Amino acid sequence: MDATTLPPVLRLAPDDGVLIARIALPPGTTVAPGVTVGEKRIPPGHKVAIRPHAAGEEIRRYGQIIGFATAPIAPGDWVHTHNCAMGDFAKDYAYSREVKTTARANTPASFMGYRRPDGRAATRNYIGIITSVNCSAHVADLIADAFKRNPFAGTDPLADYPNVDGVVALTHKTGCGMTEGEPLRLLRRTLAGYARHPNFSHVIAIGLGCEVNQLGGMLEEQRLAGRLRSMDIQEMGGTRKTVEAGIAFVKGVLAEANALQREPVPASELVVALQCGGSDGYSGITANPALGAASDLVVRHGGTVILSETPETYGAEHLLTRRAVSREVGEKLVDLMRWWEDYTAKEGAEMNANPSPGNKAGGLTTILEKSLGAMAKAGTTNLVEVYRYAEPVTAKGFVFMDTPGYDPVAATGQVAGGANLVCFTTGRGSVFGAKPAPSIKLATNSAMYERMSEDMDVNCGTILTGEETIEQAGQRIFELMLRVASGERTKSESYDFGGAEFAPWVIGATM
Amino acid sequence: MDATTLPPVLRLAPDDGVLIARIALPPGTTVAPGVTVGEKRIPPGHKVAIRPHAAGEEIRRYGQIIGFATAPIAPGDWVHTHNCAMGDFAKDYAYSREVKTTARANTPASFMGYRRPDGRAATRNYIGIITSVNCSAHVADLIADAFKRNPFAGTDPLADYPNVDGVVALTHKTGCGMTEGEPLRLLRRTLAGYARHPNFSHVIAIGLGCEVNQLGGMLEEQRLAGRLRSMDIQEMGGTRKTVEAGIAFVKGVLAEANALQREPVPASELVVALQCGGSDGYSGITANPALGAASDLVVRHGGTVILSETPETYGAEHLLTRRAVSREVGEKLVDLMRWWEDYTAKEGAEMNANPSPGNKAGGLTTILEKSLGAMAKAGTTNLVEVYRYAEPVTAKGFVFMDTPGYDPVAATGQVAGGANLVCFTTGRGSVFGAKPAPSIKLATNSAMYERMSEDMDVNCGTILTGEETIEQAGQRIFELMLRVASGERTKSESYDFGGAEFAPWVIGATM
Ligand SMILES: [Ca+2]
Ligand SMILES: [Ca+2]
Ligand SMILES: [Ca+2]
Ligand SMILES: [Ca+2]
Ligand SMILES: [Ca+2]
Repeated sequence: MDATTLPPVLRLAPDDGVLIARIALPPGTTVAPGVTVGEKRIPPGHKVAIRPHAAGEEIRRYGQIIGFATAPIAPGDWVHTHNCAMGDFAKDYAYSREVKTTARANTPASFMGYRRPDGRAATRNYIGIITSVNCSAHVADLIADAFKRNPFAGTDPLADYPNVDGVVALTHKTGCGMTEGEPLRLLRRTLAGYARHPNFSHVIAIGLGCEVNQLGGMLEEQRLAGRLRSMDIQEMGGTRKTVEAGIAFVKGVLAEANALQREPVPASELVVALQCGGSDGYSGITANPALGAASDLVVRHGGTVILSETPETYGAEHLLTRRAVSREVGEKLVDLMRWWEDYTAKEGAEMNANPSPGNKAGGLTTILEKSLGAMAKAGTTNLVEVYRYAEPVTAKGFVFMDTPGYDPVAATGQVAGGANLVCFTTGRGSVFGAKPAPSIKLATNSAMYERMSEDMDVNCGTILTGEETIEQAGQRIFELMLRVASGERTKSESYDFGGAEFAPWVIGATM
Repeated sequence: MDATTLPPVLRLAPDDGVLIARIALPPGTTVAPGVTVGEKRIPPGHKVAIRPHAAGEEIRRYGQIIGFATAPIAPGDWVHTHNCAMGDFAKDYAYSREVKTTARANTPASFMGYRRPDGRAATRNYIGIITSVNCSAHVADLIADAFKRNPFAGTDPLADYPNVDGVVALTHKTGCGMTEGEPLRLLRRTLAGYARHPNFSHVIAIGLGCEVNQLGGMLEEQRLAGRLRSMDIQEMGGTRKTVEAGIAFVKGVLAEANALQREPVPASELVVALQCGGSDGYSGITANPALGAASDLVVRHGGTVILSETPETYGAEHLLTRRAVSREVGEKLVDLMRWWEDYTAKEGAEMNANPSPGNKAGGLTTILEKSLGAMAKAGTTNLVEVYRYAEPVTAKGFVFMDTPGYDPVAATGQVAGGANLVCFTTGRGSVFGAKPAPSIKLATNSAMYERMSEDMDVNCGTILTGEETIEQAGQRIFELMLRVASGERTKSESYDFGGAEFAPWVIGATM
């Protein structure tokens, strides 16, 4: 399909008063029944009104408020900074004012997942090795390496255990030279979240022995004692003995891990981490809203979607407070924003999600509209809970978890919270994995999808060319989620991504 | 040798007025010719005076001031908080007051090292893969993995290249979601230091493409363009194509890398990173002073030793300012201390090297004495230069580099600065490597050395038992340095340590 046959506009939600120009639209172009572009040409990616807006009236995109008319707007008018602004919107959190009932799906969907003996549902079946400190990272790697396929030698130490997805060492750079208090608590919460992750059948925890993040203290604080095999290198008598004990432990549990069989599990057990990285001008009009449509399906089927990347939501939290099921939930979100303001001020950084000149040239008018581009991934349902980084996610529905925007750190918090699937939209082409959860990668545009097709699972560029609607793409993504949760390999799993990307958030000074 | 035959005291430097009790010394024990312990029993690890000190007179240990007598002290007296304190010492930096001439060795030592075509000396011969961002970490690992020995399959892809020590991927958790300014400059300085390290024959730099730490900008800023092969995954068309190009590059340079032969190189080319981790009560009386004696030999032979771990020097910087070759060099050190005060205050952490109750029970009286335990590694020569983290070290002699105390982060800065050998003292038993530099590990006590003998290269517990003096141990360490620089494998190299421990210092907020 070439540019001349493109439908001229893109509708992001049914009740939107503005549509998005796919290409430059000269005056006179028909954009809706009986609506033609007025005197001003609409640049590609910009908004055109399809109904009249009085001065002061709200303007909606993604079904949500992006600003208010600063002058009367006629159907066919270009809508941008000359006639649209935030107004006093950001002064009112309007807690829960836009809460609505979420229709449950008539036919509950399911996937072929694993059920752990204690009832938890899993999408993969790994053996995990967590590490208290960088000083035990290499020992953990040596244990995991003993179970790695070698493509050159053609060997596969797990060949006899087809139901075991692998042995994954989760190593990091911190765990000592740190202050106690929140930096240590945050690390422990993260490691404990992985230790408890349903996608692990068995877990080993390896420490050095003299680190700040003592394994014993962590296991007690996080109530993990008895749930995993724990070893300190210094107590074991050094590298070789620890590696041998680790390998022996894994060999000893492989048969039990392999005995688990996939069985039907309702889609309500899906916990989907929403991510975007390497965004481009298409993210907010293709992959993110398509993932949002899929998120709405997950929630309608009783599952959970986790939106994160707090700095990218900053300035537009007023949209989410309106959708919060209670004032209390909404206030938790507002508290996060205040924490980030203090934190970044202290660190000499700045919270600023305002559209840049480049964003404005691309058609983004307000901070709301820009942040909505990222928030669109979470769909349109109510915000039911707000979590701190790496906290266990127990609510069903659309939840928010505080994380930085930086992809590996953000996804690590979400997976620690229990996400059993990651959906990652990318415009530039991020390569990413997040073991033990599989990661689906969604391309925002066809050119990148073609160039990096071996790394991309879904092309959402089809929305731009009019090959499918956002709803159709959302349905396709939801179906892929169920297949991947059932064991279908994602592109990043085919390359064994997801170990190096384990990156616990570090918030304190390294001493 | 059992405890009953131990010499009762340990002398840490020739002109010390106090000796250290190896075991509890009852009144009447002879500790020096004509000197017996007075009325007060000396606990093990504590100090006994061997000559009279008038009130106000300085008290020296390691040949350096640890405090001043607060009452007259007689030979045989226990010296501790009841009769020794800092006084006004810390109010006077006394720049360069204790500078002295360093005697050069009569017979210059040498090792069998590599000479790069541009004249730089190396102790190992690796091919390196640096990464701009966590998003390219796994791709770098995939390339390096293609050249790894597989102990299970018995394969060694580098079998035909005996002069190549390996292919090492240096991956990390940062590079995006960060602010520009010092956090980015610091990361780039670190990566560039590795890219330029003489122990690499060839280097590949791998980026994703959309990260804050753009490869192009880094190569230009650090003047690395043309010195290495650089690839962005997004530009290459994804994971497989990048990995294949990386593997092809390595295959293409292996013969050239392998052609280099070891040849005699003067010991003046040694650049030794000094480290301690997992310290115990013996660190300051065995391994650290022994390494200090070896450091003095390195400097006498014209080489360089790098002391770091700024927080552990805090409060005792007055000792180093006295040894600074100029006021300018001394002031650089003082500036670092002020930076750390500001930084930790901002981060809600605290700079406090004061002896804890446990330290005091163990015999450490003042902050000077405690910090000297760590600083003893650097020996007794003049402080010739002070560097920021990861800055190229070009001075010969004893230098200081600003780093945190945390081992992997500290050593990463030193190796980025050009260290071609790491000497790491440990009491609890750290396991550590720092590719591309070899790491010698020195145990502070025989019990740990025996328990972890497969990880420890040197036992300094011999000093405590009187089997050798600090000078003898220093000579032994210096000779091992030359052998290791000549290619002898350290214990940590036998286990392939040194990749996971690459840990650039992160100082800004993760956004
Ligand atoms: Ca990214
Ligand atoms: Ca992101
Ligand atoms: Ca340590
Ligand atoms: Ca240290
Ligand atoms: Ca690794």
